[in-house]
Amino acid sequence: MKTMDQPEAKELLTINEKLNQIQDLDSLLDHILFESRRFTKADAGSIFLIKNNVLEFSYVQNDTQAKVDPLNNKNIYSYFTVPIDASSLCGYVALTGEALMVDNVYQLSEGVPYSFNPQFDNFSKYRTGSVLTIPLVTRINQIIGVIQIINKKNDQQQTLPFNEDDKCYVSFFANNATIAIERARMTRQLVLRMTKMAELRDPKETWTHANRVGAYAIEIYNRWACKKGIPEEEIKRLKDNLRIAAMLHDVGKVAVSDLILKKTSPLTEKEFTEMKKHTQWGAALFADSLSDTDQLSALIAKTHHEKWDGTGYPENLKATEIPLAGRIVALADV
Amino acid sequence: MKTMDQPEAKELLTINEKLNQIQDLDSLLDHILFESRRFTKADAGSIFLIKNNVLEFSYVQNDTQAKVDPLNNKNIYSYFTVPIDASSLCGYVALTGEALMVDNVYQLSEGVPYSFNPQFDNFSKYRTGSVLTIPLVTRINQIIGVIQIINKKNDQQQTLPFNEDDKCYVSFFANNATIAIERARMTRQLVLRMTKMAELRDPKETWTHANRVGAYAIEIYNRWACKKGIPEEEIKRLKDNLRIAAMLHDVGKVAVSDLILKKTSPLTEKEFTEMKKHTQWGAALFADSLSDTDQLSALIAKTHHEKWDGTGYPENLKATEIPLAGRIVALADV
Repeated sequence: MKTMDQPEAKELLTINEKLNQIQDLDSLLDHILFESRRFTKADAGSIFLIKNNVLEFSYVQNDTQAKVDPLNNKNIYSYFTVPIDASSLCGYVALTGEALMVDNVYQLSEGVPYSFNPQFDNFSKYRTGSVLTIPLVTRINQIIGVIQIINKKNDQQQTLPFNEDDKCYVSFFANNATIAIERARMTRQLVLRMTKMAELRDPKETWTHANRVGAYAIEIYNRWACKKGIPEEEIKRLKDNLRIAAMLHDVGKVAVSDLILKKTSPLTEKEFTEMKKHTQWGAALFADSLSDTDQLSALIAKTHHEKWDGTGYPENLKATEIPLAGRIVALADV
Repeated sequence: MKTMDQPEAKELLTINEKLNQIQDLDSLLDHILFESRRFTKADAGSIFLIKNNVLEFSYVQNDTQAKVDPLNNKNIYSYFTVPIDASSLCGYVALTGEALMVDNVYQLSEGVPYSFNPQFDNFSKYRTGSVLTIPLVTRINQIIGVIQIINKKNDQQQTLPFNEDDKCYVSFFANNATIAIERARMTRQLVLRMTKMAELRDPKETWTHANRVGAYAIEIYNRWACKKGIPEEEIKRLKDNLRIAAMLHDVGKVAVSDLILKKTSPLTEKEFTEMKKHTQWGAALFADSLSDTDQLSALIAKTHHEKWDGTGYPENLKATEIPLAGRIVALADV
């Protein structure tokens, strides 16, 4: 084997390392689409993710469009979903799990099992020519979406067909995208499971309620952080964790007796003492982990019933003794 | 940018794709170590994972040793753990998170902050020369282990120092390993959380009990499958899922009233009817997911109280009407 001095291999490794440092899913998929287009010199591209059995436009980049109408670049695409069938190239790739390379979408060969959907071109006045579409396939062979890049350009801005090498590159980046999406989904699954277990005990603790508390919490944090001038990077990082941790604020209730949880009349003092323990039980559930999200989850579970005037529980903390995240979720939990 | 006809970049992409098709964690880490060594022409290598604040030997490959004593190759290493400190190269890399390249471990420069631990060489009679050690760092900057490759060889079997290109290659493979380990840990975390929530309700439902049922279940399945001549690949694939799903067989109990769960006298008929529902509640917890593990978890939760003679619950299934996985966990749940 030769030593590695080929610029392509080196660049690939460098980009891979750079991508691995991006935590935020949206920003990562944006970078992946950008690098896929840069490596293949593609004018445009999108990532579609499967949701409720259709493909949803999730990320889109279009250099030509961006020049014509910088503001509308994203918006014109955001209304479309695509069925998973042979009526579009994306749909066909999502259906079959096979990569597809088409030199000119307006001159498809006779008898090919897929067709080009001109809806987007008609709407956007963009002219699609060559297209490379790669499925996003997980390690357990689930197809979760597709990445599509459009119009390979030479230096004279003429449209060229994509080639096998382009396919290798985009497949590599597609894999990177798949891993990131899977990771985000596993986290979501964990939250969903814990919430569902809590809901089995107390039908008031629904996924919808948890979702709402999560959404309110990041909204409240966002306003606070903007006013305080917290750097955007830090806001972004905390928001992700805060949303998840806020959703799990009440999971400790799983340990409270149903006599107390489901009682409709006022609780006796002894019952209330028992009820208050859900804050500590919740914290205990996350005690085994050192991840940022879990530590924040433990903190919020423990402190979201403290009150500014010190009359809360479990530790009667006062004012700024209460961690910020606990104060935020106390407000968000309505 | 040039078109991609460099063999290294292409080979890297091919290997990356191959690695992505391996599901089993052990087999994947084994392949990653092998490819890291092949790309860098290293005679030996190991992967260490951090567990309870020490580094544990997890995977080891040694061509020279394998020739001398094929049977003992793995065993001589399996007793060692290494502290996370400067007393060894691995320990130092795990401590600092920085990659480390050493040309000759017996001739370290004066004043370097790390040292070489000759314990393994002394024990194994193997002579370590050049060493490249790369940390396994997650996207959220947790160090979870190290990959170490030893003695770069030329075609005449002389030992050479590693170089910067080797570092790029091994870093790339290390990243692949990190992702796989993280994924496995997230799954473990999900099981742990669900078990802990169940334990909060019913102290008999401990992680230890769940672990035992998981271990018994795969042991029983293994014997059955070997007798039936099931292909090894299929056994391996099912075992992983079965262990996890078996561990979660009783999580539906979270929905049973504590008056019933904690009652020490015999249950009334009405109470028992309520208790039986934990099988269906358990199944419902996994109903949202299409993953193989979750589908198996739902099946086991639902059928692990059925009995061969049809006197079980919830559906009074008989004999082979009961899914195999349900029958296995019924036996394993002791």
